[in-house]
Amino acid sequence: MAANQPLLPIQYQNEKVILLDQTLLPQEIRYVEIKTPEEMADAIRRLVVRGAPAIGIAGAFGLYLGAREAHAKSAEALMHSLAVAKDVLASSRPTAVNLFAALDRAFGAAQAAAGAGGTPAGIRLALLGQAQAILGEEERACLAIGENALTLLKDGMTLLTHCNAGGLATIRYGTALAPMLLGAERGIRFHVYADETRPLLQGARLTALELMNAGVDVTLITDSMAGVLMTQGKIDAVITGSDRIAANGDFANKIGTYSLAVLARFHHVPFYVAAPFSTIDPATPRGDSIVIEERQQEEITCGFGRRTAPAGVKAYNPAFDVTPAEFAGAIITERGILTAPYGESIARFAGR
Amino acid sequence: MAANQPLLPIQYQNEKVILLDQTLLPQEIRYVEIKTPEEMADAIRRLVVRGAPAIGIAGAFGLYLGAREAHAKSAEALMHSLAVAKDVLASSRPTAVNLFAALDRAFGAAQAAAGAGGTPAGIRLALLGQAQAILGEEERACLAIGENALTLLKDGMTLLTHCNAGGLATIRYGTALAPMLLGAERGIRFHVYADETRPLLQGARLTALELMNAGVDVTLITDSMAGVLMTQGKIDAVITGSDRIAANGDFANKIGTYSLAVLARFHHVPFYVAAPFSTIDPATPRGDSIVIEERQQEEITCGFGRRTAPAGVKAYNPAFDVTPAEFAGAIITERGILTAPYGESIARFAGR
Repeated sequence: MAANQPLLPIQYQNEKVILLDQTLLPQEIRYVEIKTPEEMADAIRRLVVRGAPAIGIAGAFGLYLGAREAHAKSAEALMHSLAVAKDVLASSRPTAVNLFAALDRAFGAAQAAAGAGGTPAGIRLALLGQAQAILGEEERACLAIGENALTLLKDGMTLLTHCNAGGLATIRYGTALAPMLLGAERGIRFHVYADETRPLLQGARLTALELMNAGVDVTLITDSMAGVLMTQGKIDAVITGSDRIAANGDFANKIGTYSLAVLARFHHVPFYVAAPFSTIDPATPRGDSIVIEERQQEEITCGFGRRTAPAGVKAYNPAFDVTPAEFAGAIITERGILTAPYGESIARFAGR
Repeated sequence: MAANQPLLPIQYQNEKVILLDQTLLPQEIRYVEIKTPEEMADAIRRLVVRGAPAIGIAGAFGLYLGAREAHAKSAEALMHSLAVAKDVLASSRPTAVNLFAALDRAFGAAQAAAGAGGTPAGIRLALLGQAQAILGEEERACLAIGENALTLLKDGMTLLTHCNAGGLATIRYGTALAPMLLGAERGIRFHVYADETRPLLQGARLTALELMNAGVDVTLITDSMAGVLMTQGKIDAVITGSDRIAANGDFANKIGTYSLAVLARFHHVPFYVAAPFSTIDPATPRGDSIVIEERQQEEITCGFGRRTAPAGVKAYNPAFDVTPAEFAGAIITERGILTAPYGESIARFAGR
């Protein structure tokens, strides 16, 4: 399959803010223009855009749209409208830390512009600049993660990944998928096995799509097949993202990651974690202090619009698991490649 | 949940041959009467009845129905009709060894009755007797597997199982589920985690149903959750069935079994295989001579009645995997409990 345009969750083109409607994936690739903060909040709520970094970018552009649509004559009136828009956007995903951080940063830039005597037009430009800066920073971080990951991998390797840590959740290259997507641009070819990732099938729906779209040779498997591929010697390395990394290197990621890490260790297959440095939380000393979200049982019993288990059956549905740091051969960040002992390695890179 | 009647794939009651329509599970429990060999062949083909031992029993009853519906005045004419019925039944699942064995055995009994000067009525009775004998033997084997398994387990333990090795595939107690179902009758209570077992979800659709129906405390999980339950110390033993066991004890079972066996070993959780002794194939020296069936990719990409992966994506879908004998803490058969070294243990029990 030839490479197509990258699948970008959010774009600013010809003065339009455009989202890829991820609710239609993988069946349909449809882009929608977003014109107001209310539309952006609705898009975040309905998962049209998803993935922590992408939501942050979306929030910042949402605030810019609030400035663009407001008919305020004065900077003061505009800042009042923006405060309302910020609340609307912040309420769309109440647990999204990246969203709040991006909104605070963009709103702060608007306040600074207003405080410096800026006109409504100046405030608008400050907001647009800030949204574009956040987008650019995320994209550069993904690119650097990809560059760093490529130093650990060789052309022709077969990689295994779990869930979706790609450009659809971040921007452009993603994290775990960054070496594959960047490699495809540079003629470095990997074969990738993608776990479908039950219950929500992000691997089947998103990772397979992103990799195919970029011309990467990808094969979909069920989560239960990783072990047999490893014992056949078919996997050269496993690479996943992470949602949160403790100060000692223990890492939380999509349920199933821990099993994969044990299987990789047993079969002497290197296991790499790829994540922005901001994923490391100095306030979380170890993995056992990470609280695991338990999601609704229907994700298992009624996946995809059809009941697949008896009515009334109990199901256990933790969204994430925590893998001890010792299972990670390396944690690949945009600042560099962290290695064990992770506590020291993290502290060293934190200063950079 | 209180225990209900056992879910029997096939019953002979009040002179009626009755199948549980497994195509409707888990949504609906509906029994259908089968009146002719053609109807039985159709039921086997449509997976109304499934599982190697259950199909064997169904075949034998199908042949009996052929004798009952035939209006042959002579033993010779009846044997001619039966030969036709046997072909019809044998063509329903061309790879089902148990089906051919049961048909041969039942047809042989009819030939013996005819050869001994039996009337059509006598031949009919011989066929009914043989079908009931096969059913009884399968049921007793499952019961003995359950008895033997219970000697390895303790009341209150938490067990993990994969796929469906229950009464729906055999008769009454099943193999891996036998200690749970038998235990429930005797007040020995286990908590069971059932892997949903992608791609065909036999764990979600069948195992969860059978265990709930018997009043066993069951919790459904995705296949990717086993590792994290083990590291939390929540699993006391893993028990699965097997489709084929090599002479050295290597065993083939539903895809995902190997990963589970590695995870169990890593976490020092005992792993048991439960299967009729006939599952051991002396003609297969080691696991690597077992050819693994690769099934259609749509089971992964369109598994929930809806496409869940991009059109055109490649998928790898081996139906089984092979686990080396060293991972099995014991192989539990109706003849007794086999232990390592399995080659010797199998040879010892083969003589009994």
